[in-house]
Amino acid sequence: MTTVGIIGAAGYVGGELLRLLLHHPDVRVTGAYSASLRGKRVDGAHPNLRGHTALSFTDPDDRGAHDVVFLAVPHGRAVEHVRALAGTSTCVVDLTADFRLRDPGAHQRYYGEVPPADDLRAAFTPGLPELYRDALRTADRISVPGCMATAGVLALRPLAAAGLVEPGVVIDAKIGSSGSGSSATTTNLHAERSGAMRVFAPHRHRHEAEVAQETGLDVRMTATGVEAVRGAQVLCHASGKPGLAEADVRRAYRDAYADEPFVRVVAQRRGLYRLPEPKILAGTNYCDVGFSVEEDSGRVLAVAALDNLVKGAAGNAVQCLNIRLGRPEDTGMRFAGLHPV
Amino acid sequence: MTTVGIIGAAGYVGGELLRLLLHHPDVRVTGAYSASLRGKRVDGAHPNLRGHTALSFTDPDDRGAHDVVFLAVPHGRAVEHVRALAGTSTCVVDLTADFRLRDPGAHQRYYGEVPPADDLRAAFTPGLPELYRDALRTADRISVPGCMATAGVLALRPLAAAGLVEPGVVIDAKIGSSGSGSSATTTNLHAERSGAMRVFAPHRHRHEAEVAQETGLDVRMTATGVEAVRGAQVLCHASGKPGLAEADVRRAYRDAYADEPFVRVVAQRRGLYRLPEPKILAGTNYCDVGFSVEEDSGRVLAVAALDNLVKGAAGNAVQCLNIRLGRPEDTGMRFAGLHPV
Amino acid sequence: MTTVGIIGAAGYVGGELLRLLLHHPDVRVTGAYSASLRGKRVDGAHPNLRGHTALSFTDPDDRGAHDVVFLAVPHGRAVEHVRALAGTSTCVVDLTADFRLRDPGAHQRYYGEVPPADDLRAAFTPGLPELYRDALRTADRISVPGCMATAGVLALRPLAAAGLVEPGVVIDAKIGSSGSGSSATTTNLHAERSGAMRVFAPHRHRHEAEVAQETGLDVRMTATGVEAVRGAQVLCHASGKPGLAEADVRRAYRDAYADEPFVRVVAQRRGLYRLPEPKILAGTNYCDVGFSVEEDSGRVLAVAALDNLVKGAAGNAVQCLNIRLGRPEDTGMRFAGLHPV
Amino acid sequence: MTTVGIIGAAGYVGGELLRLLLHHPDVRVTGAYSASLRGKRVDGAHPNLRGHTALSFTDPDDRGAHDVVFLAVPHGRAVEHVRALAGTSTCVVDLTADFRLRDPGAHQRYYGEVPPADDLRAAFTPGLPELYRDALRTADRISVPGCMATAGVLALRPLAAAGLVEPGVVIDAKIGSSGSGSSATTTNLHAERSGAMRVFAPHRHRHEAEVAQETGLDVRMTATGVEAVRGAQVLCHASGKPGLAEADVRRAYRDAYADEPFVRVVAQRRGLYRLPEPKILAGTNYCDVGFSVEEDSGRVLAVAALDNLVKGAAGNAVQCLNIRLGRPEDTGMRFAGLHPV
Repeated sequence: MTTVGIIGAAGYVGGELLRLLLHHPDVRVTGAYSASLRGKRVDGAHPNLRGHTALSFTDPDDRGAHDVVFLAVPHGRAVEHVRALAGTSTCVVDLTADFRLRDPGAHQRYYGEVPPADDLRAAFTPGLPELYRDALRTADRISVPGCMATAGVLALRPLAAAGLVEPGVVIDAKIGSSGSGSSATTTNLHAERSGAMRVFAPHRHRHEAEVAQETGLDVRMTATGVEAVRGAQVLCHASGKPGLAEADVRRAYRDAYADEPFVRVVAQRRGLYRLPEPKILAGTNYCDVGFSVEEDSGRVLAVAALDNLVKGAAGNAVQCLNIRLGRPEDTGMRFAGLHPV
Repeated sequence: MTTVGIIGAAGYVGGELLRLLLHHPDVRVTGAYSASLRGKRVDGAHPNLRGHTALSFTDPDDRGAHDVVFLAVPHGRAVEHVRALAGTSTCVVDLTADFRLRDPGAHQRYYGEVPPADDLRAAFTPGLPELYRDALRTADRISVPGCMATAGVLALRPLAAAGLVEPGVVIDAKIGSSGSGSSATTTNLHAERSGAMRVFAPHRHRHEAEVAQETGLDVRMTATGVEAVRGAQVLCHASGKPGLAEADVRRAYRDAYADEPFVRVVAQRRGLYRLPEPKILAGTNYCDVGFSVEEDSGRVLAVAALDNLVKGAAGNAVQCLNIRLGRPEDTGMRFAGLHPV
Repeated sequence: MTTVGIIGAAGYVGGELLRLLLHHPDVRVTGAYSASLRGKRVDGAHPNLRGHTALSFTDPDDRGAHDVVFLAVPHGRAVEHVRALAGTSTCVVDLTADFRLRDPGAHQRYYGEVPPADDLRAAFTPGLPELYRDALRTADRISVPGCMATAGVLALRPLAAAGLVEPGVVIDAKIGSSGSGSSATTTNLHAERSGAMRVFAPHRHRHEAEVAQETGLDVRMTATGVEAVRGAQVLCHASGKPGLAEADVRRAYRDAYADEPFVRVVAQRRGLYRLPEPKILAGTNYCDVGFSVEEDSGRVLAVAALDNLVKGAAGNAVQCLNIRLGRPEDTGMRFAGLHPV
Repeated sequence: MTTVGIIGAAGYVGGELLRLLLHHPDVRVTGAYSASLRGKRVDGAHPNLRGHTALSFTDPDDRGAHDVVFLAVPHGRAVEHVRALAGTSTCVVDLTADFRLRDPGAHQRYYGEVPPADDLRAAFTPGLPELYRDALRTADRISVPGCMATAGVLALRPLAAAGLVEPGVVIDAKIGSSGSGSSATTTNLHAERSGAMRVFAPHRHRHEAEVAQETGLDVRMTATGVEAVRGAQVLCHASGKPGLAEADVRRAYRDAYADEPFVRVVAQRRGLYRLPEPKILAGTNYCDVGFSVEEDSGRVLAVAALDNLVKGAAGNAVQCLNIRLGRPEDTGMRFAGLHPV
């Protein structure tokens, strides 16, 4: 049994890590850390876990030793934990943005601050199984990408890798309210957030930098909050290289994802759910990816959808763990998702 | 022109008062008071009012004189304002709970505290036009009832007054998130409140006391938050006196509300909207009232629906003002409501 | 391996049966029957099952032999299938209303028609594990109760069995739109159903009869559609026998459900989710049951919540199957539910 | 008094025309036509109009004479009415797509059919007050644009007219479910449409052609259904000409819309509602228009939001009527919109 600790276990991502790991057959959760809720029952913060755990939160200052530690802390706070864990934990899976960008200059441009701990940066492998599976098998430092970054990379990477589209791509991203976390702010007040179509990042959403990093494309990303709790969707407006045929695009996606356990190609000609949509993915680790090509104009629309808390965060992290442990990647994550919902 | 000041103008009820009064032909809003937002533009807090006002919020400590003052402050805070306004304003319309209950003992039971300012209590007329129209014509102190109280009273009063039902009545009330106000709390976080069916008052919701006071019935009220921003609905489960006929009930409602500008009797045998429902009332001052009678068992269901911020608060207050000013009661409130919505 | 056929597999309940049974370790789905979609892929109607099955729908007239057959057909249509299956299937699990009421007179009163097939009626065991577990171990004909009936029975049965409350109980039930099935009607048009608080059964909802049958109480049930896709909640307003103490009520629930895998007692004094709420149960087989007692008045509120398609239908049916097969009752149903959602 | 008839009065756009015109001080609604609901009360189909009208629907075949006729019929059906009305009505306001595109070739490309009635086409003036106000003062044939077309044109026209952006623009449009009309289809079933992020037009949404026609830009538009009943929003991703300054953009919008009664420029640096959002516009005739400019990269995001049934259809039509009648443009449309909502 691999022992696991979760730092930042009281938040929404922490809750999803707990949900997935408490029933994981190869893992034992030996620490759920939260400074603000220390001493309180875990199922108080995460009522879906009633009957699934008797754990209480522990103060992070009283941290024990674990084989693997997940960091679900605020951005900028991972560094201190990574340093502190150096001696005690074999593997650290970081869900913050601290080590996502390889280029310190990009970090500075997108986060407005000198990146933390450049000495540690090179040790991190991106937590993107579809691109870094081999490296993840032995990685001791894993940096899980942002939710819309994962969607954008999985939507565009096959097109970029096969050289099918021009470099300039517009990404229009939509996301539910859980993406803003569990803190009570006016921004997330139900009466204000309900029914929103709120452009909260007209330019340069931070996940844009990750999509550019992993695809080499010249990406511009706008992000809008829409009415949903979970779920993110990206619409990537691209232009095909001259002569692009739909069959080329379909082949690129099929080739890229035929063996992926958590990427499904959804690109039907008709039907209600003919392109990826997050609502039927809630709670699952899928990233559905699809496309539509208009051959005469060369317009390509690539679409990806996922649950921002699962494939966009906790589930992706657990998939990385499964790879690291040499286990089937869907261990603990066979939930198919709901319909209708 | 009657000059009007609104204390507590930055909250949701304050915003609705502004929306209704800024275009009222007989009124001029000469003060919008908010301690927390003093100096800020009114249309910053209430973005629907962009282009409708150039007002900024003023500190309540710098209050000027107004013919009429509306109090949209937290419960327990009306008293100080009522005293302070004694010399300067002819009419005070209080939207807090401070003066709603005539019986100080009831106030103490339901609010858990000695009621404030019993010396002032007797001066207040309930702001319920359907019951107190004549008194409101000359009232200088008006206490607007709670939103679910208004719904409950208007649903049950005709039955009670005509002696058609037994005294024991169960009221099941549902309400949207705006009823909790504009403060950011975990309770009202979008991700938590969304899709809720949350019993927040299993017993003794405070509005129960008002329904009992105005109907003489033995009421028990449970309140549940459901997915909506605006809107409240009460289902009143009553038992008819022996031999009750549906026609008696229909007549009682028709007689009570035939001439009311803002109460519609909605009790059809079929159709999608055959009983009152709040969604089509958003923004209007209607309280729709309906019923269903099962003659052989004597079961009576009385239903009422309203917009908790309008007929349940600000609109009702403006209707009272119109009566007080001798103007048509629907002045400034002819919006019909939307469908679909 | 037990072979299973599902008749009516294209509807919402049929889809949930497929979701739960396709991954059930002891079962093989050997037939998914739908007249209207025969020949079409199952994951076309149930897009959440993409990658989980290659099945297509078969015409019910071409039915093969299966050890167990689930009937997810419209009410009134189960009889013909039960007769036809007599020779070929050991066990029939019926999800219609056809065999729920033991008393033909009650069926006639609530369904407005002579009950079908009284000769078959006695052979059915109610599919309510919490009440009929022993009988289910050997039952060959199982009749799964209605969704709000299951909630109402589980909420009230401990109080009734312990004689803690007076017989007259008012049940106020709320339900999401999936309860109306997958047919396109104006009633369920998004623009009309969205944000609804729609009293669709002011009196005598059909599930009332089942609650009365299983509790012996004198129940009156009103049902309202609220904004949700999945989820049902009942609020049961009861009156305690003289001298009732909260501790008695708590003990009654604890005693009744301490060993139940799918009933959790949720009755906290504080917290956001202190009473049962369906949103965190979506996709799970839980029925959460809670209560609130006001000792001085004797008022008792019993609350139950469930996912109408799971514990209210398909999940409950699978739990019955597990009992019938002698397997752990939660086989195939260990999903904990999501939060936030 | 101008007499008005509405053909197609039972649909959602017809209902909004009725809501706005029944209280219009210069107009009398003398015919509400619906073949399917002939003889039924208008407030049966439009429950918000209870107490506002005693009208019943009339069969279109029994049409009387009216000064003005509004056509809220399905696309392709306007032509027959326009011909039939030639003798009897001075002014026809058409809300279908039949006469929106001046270029018959564009109509054929986007609608897949030879455009109807090219002989009538030239007689129509676009029902876009912001661009065609002068022509509308005397227009007898008015063709109201599509909802997302109006949003797109108002968002982009100032940039295009001032030559501030490059011609290639990506429009990402979102819309609520009322845009699909009041017919019951699986597409619009609540359980399926709820929480959707559904790309229903990956390329060449028909409104794209109108935006191109009125701006001269090379537009590509993708349309997605999101969770809302009313409301449409367009995000227009453009690239500024070299050296573009934010101040130029701001000036272009201010100049274009300073005197417009129904276009507000919403482009703040901070705040919850700093860019246009449809929810606070429900029921109003506003099209809020905003922008964000990133000067160093030259990226320009133009945003517009409106209520698809009002400024996107019925309200815009009434604004045209007001212009045609020489009345203040906001006659009958002074509702400010709601917040929160």
